[in-house]
Amino acid sequence: MAATNASGTTTVRYGGMRTQVLALEVVLADGTVIRPGSRAVKSSAGYDLRAVFVGSEGTLGVITEVTVRLYGIPEHTVAVRAAFPDVGAACRSAVAMIGSSVMVTRVELLDAESIAAVNAYKETAYEEAPSLFIEFAGTQSGVAGDLEATRELAELEGCTSFESETAQEARTKLWEARHHAAFAIAARSPGKGAMATDVAVPLSDLAAAVEFARERVDARGRDAAIIGHVGDGNFHVALMIDPEDPADLVDAQELNAELVEWALARGGTCTGEHGIGLGKIAYLEREHGDLLPYLRALKQTFDPNGILNPGKILAEPV
Amino acid sequence: MAATNASGTTTVRYGGMRTQVLALEVVLADGTVIRPGSRAVKSSAGYDLRAVFVGSEGTLGVITEVTVRLYGIPEHTVAVRAAFPDVGAACRSAVAMIGSSVMVTRVELLDAESIAAVNAYKETAYEEAPSLFIEFAGTQSGVAGDLEATRELAELEGCTSFESETAQEARTKLWEARHHAAFAIAARSPGKGAMATDVAVPLSDLAAAVEFARERVDARGRDAAIIGHVGDGNFHVALMIDPEDPADLVDAQELNAELVEWALARGGTCTGEHGIGLGKIAYLEREHGDLLPYLRALKQTFDPNGILNPGKILAEPV
Repeated sequence: MAATNASGTTTVRYGGMRTQVLALEVVLADGTVIRPGSRAVKSSAGYDLRAVFVGSEGTLGVITEVTVRLYGIPEHTVAVRAAFPDVGAACRSAVAMIGSSVMVTRVELLDAESIAAVNAYKETAYEEAPSLFIEFAGTQSGVAGDLEATRELAELEGCTSFESETAQEARTKLWEARHHAAFAIAARSPGKGAMATDVAVPLSDLAAAVEFARERVDARGRDAAIIGHVGDGNFHVALMIDPEDPADLVDAQELNAELVEWALARGGTCTGEHGIGLGKIAYLEREHGDLLPYLRALKQTFDPNGILNPGKILAEPV
Repeated sequence: MAATNASGTTTVRYGGMRTQVLALEVVLADGTVIRPGSRAVKSSAGYDLRAVFVGSEGTLGVITEVTVRLYGIPEHTVAVRAAFPDVGAACRSAVAMIGSSVMVTRVELLDAESIAAVNAYKETAYEEAPSLFIEFAGTQSGVAGDLEATRELAELEGCTSFESETAQEARTKLWEARHHAAFAIAARSPGKGAMATDVAVPLSDLAAAVEFARERVDARGRDAAIIGHVGDGNFHVALMIDPEDPADLVDAQELNAELVEWALARGGTCTGEHGIGLGKIAYLEREHGDLLPYLRALKQTFDPNGILNPGKILAEPV
């Protein structure tokens, strides 16, 4: 229930895929096969190497097997789409839902520009307003109560429309706008390349972070859409960049730097889920400069010849 | 919601305290201060050093600050005590509840011997049968539905009594037997020393594991009580050992070895929450022999002179 699923939506309360991995089989650079973790949900047997390999971007070993947690399929599931007057209201509402007794399993934000892109792409007529896509699950009476609580929380933030579905097919239909968003945003800028920012911030700073992102996008006169895995305080500004215009790339990078600095100043992170790769090496140094010697030592331990995904995460060859 | 709280009970679905720690401040052996993690719920910024320090038993650094996740206080909470004909039925029922749509936040097992110890210690009259202590939370209608679902699941396993409370004071009273258990078990063997086993197994093997533990305790003619954090597949056999009788200690250690071997054969772990310390170094080697060179390398990286909690977790001085 915590993974980013095939549709790119993320469930909340669990901190991403990281907390769902129980065990791994990893082939190391020298061919050694190790099996960190166990099939038990909880273990205190030695340092948690499993966690070191999750998200290591292929730089410490090749993961050849993953054991994940399983969950029962909920008895009843409700999907909700709610529109708000602005992104701040939508984010505040999402955070209120997560802090409430509603057992939210997914909550995703599409801003007005994302919805407009979907309408253009799919010839739909969704209200072009910042919208939350919410899912919660439980027993029949539980989800009924959660639906009323969710509606009340949305109304407190001036929600302008609120629709819910319980049947499987209708829920799938309701989620369609969210699932088409990434394609729709790319489709409205033919010939351009995509770049997505990926900061995550404390939930208490989420609304301000998304408002800041929207303000900076507008101030720079850019066309951009915001998609948020708001349950995790993580959001993406999807920027389309003209490959023929170097100044456009510089502008997009400056915007990204503004968002990262804003997030780091509040204890957030430069990457919620995309990872460091090549493009965020400078931001890793900015965020965790104090950790770099120890990250390098880990790389040296597992891949002393630097043959695994070389140059990623850490700048200098080890 | 996932921590072992002051009463020693553990909440479920989250895999222990490990998943609740967002960030740390750690003083390393050479005095360097590092801050792994961030205030964001989710991050992919470099290798997860935060996870390496959680559960490292003071052997890699001294943790001087911990940032944990916060959760809203649920609107409504229900506590349940349910008695079963045998420990297998109680465990199967717990696992069914966790796999259901009931939003269980805690589920703890006390076996008949634990309840008998509490009755002797507190002059209470609880039914001396294997019992689950269960808690779930949510909206008012949600917990009402969860209560009915929980009752049905308990009845499917032949539950012999089922009582529930919602008011704060009554819930505290209901949990008392669980909270007194550790003291009660120690109190019924004055002059003896306590030893607790700590295996965790996959939830699908939990009932068989606890049945095996009870069978081995009885076969060895020992007086022992079983307490389980059954939501995590983790349970303790509390053994009281006569310090004047070396054979008694050997017998207890043999029993522990039987439980560990049983758990490891099913992909479980030798320690769910107590850690390795000195006493389980051999079991760590048995469970994760393949990882030992890399665990030693971590120790070497952070504490090259071996001054931090020396001799714990890893046997040989590094």
